[in-house]
Amino acid sequence: MTSFFDEETSIEPNGDGSWRTELSAQWNIGDNPNGGYAASALLRSLSASVPHSAPLSVTSHFQRPALGDRAGTIEVEVVRAGRLTSTATGRLLQGDKERIRSIATFGQLDGDARTGTTVSFPPVSLPDPDACRSRDTLAQGIDLPIMSRLDVRLDPELAEPGVAGRAEMAGWIRFRDEAPVTAGALPLFCDAFPPSLFGLLGRVGWVPTLELTVHVRAIPVPGWIRARFETRDLAGGFLIEDGVLWDEAGSVVAQSRQLALLRTDGSDS
Amino acid sequence: MTSFFDEETSIEPNGDGSWRTELSAQWNIGDNPNGGYAASALLRSLSASVPHSAPLSVTSHFQRPALGDRAGTIEVEVVRAGRLTSTATGRLLQGDKERIRSIATFGQLDGDARTGTTVSFPPVSLPDPDACRSRDTLAQGIDLPIMSRLDVRLDPELAEPGVAGRAEMAGWIRFRDEAPVTAGALPLFCDAFPPSLFGLLGRVGWVPTLELTVHVRAIPVPGWIRARFETRDLAGGFLIEDGVLWDEAGSVVAQSRQLALLRTDGSDS
Repeated sequence: MTSFFDEETSIEPNGDGSWRTELSAQWNIGDNPNGGYAASALLRSLSASVPHSAPLSVTSHFQRPALGDRAGTIEVEVVRAGRLTSTATGRLLQGDKERIRSIATFGQLDGDARTGTTVSFPPVSLPDPDACRSRDTLAQGIDLPIMSRLDVRLDPELAEPGVAGRAEMAGWIRFRDEAPVTAGALPLFCDAFPPSLFGLLGRVGWVPTLELTVHVRAIPVPGWIRARFETRDLAGGFLIEDGVLWDEAGSVVAQSRQLALLRTDGSDS
Repeated sequence: MTSFFDEETSIEPNGDGSWRTELSAQWNIGDNPNGGYAASALLRSLSASVPHSAPLSVTSHFQRPALGDRAGTIEVEVVRAGRLTSTATGRLLQGDKERIRSIATFGQLDGDARTGTTVSFPPVSLPDPDACRSRDTLAQGIDLPIMSRLDVRLDPELAEPGVAGRAEMAGWIRFRDEAPVTAGALPLFCDAFPPSLFGLLGRVGWVPTLELTVHVRAIPVPGWIRARFETRDLAGGFLIEDGVLWDEAGSVVAQSRQLALLRTDGSDS
């Protein structure tokens, strides 16, 4: 059985080195596809172009909102294919306009460990998923078609607008169809929670991501992904939000950091 | 008076859209230029190609070591020049081989704040610079020509190999010639300390940076920059090191995160 994520991030070679994809509107937040989703077919094209499969580091710069239920063209350049790692860059275009530019370095996460030393930190403490609040019950003031594809449960303590008094968001996430969470899905999972500013400021309107960097750290074991996001640094309208994802075994499976814009008007950047 | 940094990251247009630079060997760590330094002329070329000057976000993927006292060619592509922000990408070549690929989004840090809300965190506590240890007294087992250009003072508690028992490094940094620290210099300052693993593991050999992302948050006031780096996540030989820089007014001026490789052999990636 093909999962929604596999199907709706599928890519076909155009024959000229570029790829064709079709973004679904089922991953929309408001009127446009979620950025992490929109970048997923692009990431898949980069991955398909190099000998290594796991995105050890992927950075996406968002140029314009992507469009749901619309075809897109993906152009890829392989920067370097090495022994341990490979680097590729590319862009997603729709209607001849560039939407996203990404660069990623790939490697093997299940290869031979090059040192026995590990350093890590424990998962955030959370109520069970069934004791958490579904993201679609949150008063965010925006339609969330993406909830047809993702099951996101929020720590109830952080899900009341402005009540937590701190810029933190935490909870659980999995695919709605319970498809396995691959390395290539983790960047999307890093971009699928409400802004962590919600717990501090309440409804914050549109917090567009300018740039998102995700480091995939391990292939998750089956089950829920536990996540925590925090904004420790907001100044002049620009904020840095850090995120960590853990699997059910308690391993860190991804870390994320994004630069976003907190704006009170509706104008374009 | 031109500073060493200005002089040794200077760029000249080649007339065909590319730029020419000459990397100095005075910023070497061992036999090759420090990555943050080698990426600085490239960052300067990106900045010179867009209407905004401050690198709000810059990601560099390091393909091969750069070469000191050698000319380099820099190629730039402007991705988008917008009202609030602009994005550009480019690469540094030496001897026809690509050394570094970078992408950056630029903006104005001193522009009109788009919200009055700020979130921040206090500077790391440190002894005064004169009570700290110069980086060149550290038993790192590597030559540090870069100390002719940078004055780096380390928290003595963290400067003994393996004694701290945690993967943390902290201290002060400024240019040796006390040149003002511009927004464009902060990414270099994020890559100029010993690996934070030093306090946990002692001499760790070569810890090559695969990817470095720096978010410049504010233009520093004159004086020393205070810095703290930590590795919270090392697995399978790949590590994530986070850094924060503060100015003498106590403001966060940059945050950094890098993906690096902890290796015990000397082979190429």
